[in-house]
Amino acid sequence: MIGLPMNVPAPGLPARVRIHEVGARDGLQNEKTAVPTEVKAEFVHRLAAAGLTTIEATSFVHPKWVPQLADAEQLFPLLADVDAALPVLVPNERGLDRALALGATRIAVFGSATETFASRNLNRTVAESLAMFEPVVARARQGGAHVRGYLSMCFGDPWEGAVPVHQVVSVAKALLDLGCDELSLGDTIGVATPGHVQALLSALNEAGVPTDRIGVHFHDTYGQALSNTLAALQHGVTTVDASAGGLGGCPYAKSATGNLATEDLVWMLDGLGIETGVDLAALTATSVWMAERLGRPSPSRTVRALSHKE
Amino acid sequence: MIGLPMNVPAPGLPARVRIHEVGARDGLQNEKTAVPTEVKAEFVHRLAAAGLTTIEATSFVHPKWVPQLADAEQLFPLLADVDAALPVLVPNERGLDRALALGATRIAVFGSATETFASRNLNRTVAESLAMFEPVVARARQGGAHVRGYLSMCFGDPWEGAVPVHQVVSVAKALLDLGCDELSLGDTIGVATPGHVQALLSALNEAGVPTDRIGVHFHDTYGQALSNTLAALQHGVTTVDASAGGLGGCPYAKSATGNLATEDLVWMLDGLGIETGVDLAALTATSVWMAERLGRPSPSRTVRALSHKE
Repeated sequence: MIGLPMNVPAPGLPARVRIHEVGARDGLQNEKTAVPTEVKAEFVHRLAAAGLTTIEATSFVHPKWVPQLADAEQLFPLLADVDAALPVLVPNERGLDRALALGATRIAVFGSATETFASRNLNRTVAESLAMFEPVVARARQGGAHVRGYLSMCFGDPWEGAVPVHQVVSVAKALLDLGCDELSLGDTIGVATPGHVQALLSALNEAGVPTDRIGVHFHDTYGQALSNTLAALQHGVTTVDASAGGLGGCPYAKSATGNLATEDLVWMLDGLGIETGVDLAALTATSVWMAERLGRPSPSRTVRALSHKE
Repeated sequence: MIGLPMNVPAPGLPARVRIHEVGARDGLQNEKTAVPTEVKAEFVHRLAAAGLTTIEATSFVHPKWVPQLADAEQLFPLLADVDAALPVLVPNERGLDRALALGATRIAVFGSATETFASRNLNRTVAESLAMFEPVVARARQGGAHVRGYLSMCFGDPWEGAVPVHQVVSVAKALLDLGCDELSLGDTIGVATPGHVQALLSALNEAGVPTDRIGVHFHDTYGQALSNTLAALQHGVTTVDASAGGLGGCPYAKSATGNLATEDLVWMLDGLGIETGVDLAALTATSVWMAERLGRPSPSRTVRALSHKE
């Protein structure tokens, strides 16, 4: 059993990548099993101990919409001693108030590149959602908080099909104009391929968005997440979203719609000699532990391979 | 539901890739369920109808070692009308005799880059296995057959760990010197990462092996198969092995050791505008059909996503 990949760098790739760990928020909000607040707190502590430096902790959204994260007020104070940046998602000013009252210093807003998804997910047009974000971003920054702008459906949309690159660029620029410090480009339904990734990144650069303000967020629905990540790294991207153990996707579901598993990403980055600060064994142990809490195996192939008892 | 990826080419990639489909041989020989000969024959016919042009059909190995393929003599004549190249694996001269007697025109031998795997899989040293292949390759070529040389454990070996690149180059050259027309570089345990892939390909080129005689054969044990494939394409490789539906790997096993799924590969190649001749919908339908015969879902993420009923 080989526990670590061989370290063979490839030319033209970044020396270091920052992993934006989304398992505790994007992962758990899509899991059916209710997870106790204390387990979530231990999860975040374990992720930080495994070396993750940015761990999205929870979402201050109305419990009616995301009941899995209804305990944000109880959870966040339990993370005061975590040695990592702990961004939280806020949908609107009410969510921002709740997050700032608890001392959050990094927030994220969640936009859509398509009208259909904006309508279905935010119950607004894209323009209306940007108007809703405007005071959120402004007030967060006034308070000194760092703001991430998620942009979903950047490649394909289940209702609209292929999403034109210029449309994504337009919403991305609008989010940055509002004051977002960084963007996370989401392939929410996992349909992207490497040429599309590079075309979007190039178009953003041409529109004046520097690569160092862009993160990528790939889903593994069609098994494409890691090759798309490689394409993004080759373009110079150094912020990559991933979910510990592939949380949020179910290995037994006919349609596995989960995030890229952090362990699969770390295996590749370790192999390429790209620094992440993450201890793969500790991270895998954390995902195995969380899988036991959820009562089902991790969909991450690396977690399954490394935790396989001969 | 988007049934096909958007077509966005990336610079520097080949215009066309030949997929060497291994599901009927490498896939089925690793499946626990016994598959009737007629089902295998229908499988190969369906793969050809889906546009695959090279379909490894079976193995003329002693039934004691691979009972799943003990029906090679019965199967091969049922494929006479298949409009595709149908290579078969032969372990030795006895296997070659059986294959040639049935009219096989493409054969493959199966070598190892490491001594430990040669010993365990072939019960020989690497040198002894090459000596065993010598008359097989010579006689096959005398008879006008095309010969493929598989080389397993090209990146890591479960007993020896990392496999030095120069060691792989040495055995690869020896296989070509015996008369093999092409090589298939196998990452048998799925541990490779893109820099390692490119380093091995460059070393082979430097040793005089042209890229057009090299195929790649990646396993998805750690989720790395498709990003490694992308790295190989960027190096100019145009022959990629894959297994329809990811046959040979079990989605429920703790350690998923399967081949790259052909559908996941075709999704990426279609998205990159790289021609394969494969009809993804027909191929997916074939893998769904075979999964029903095997009584378990396909481990291919693309198959699961495309066959998901909303």
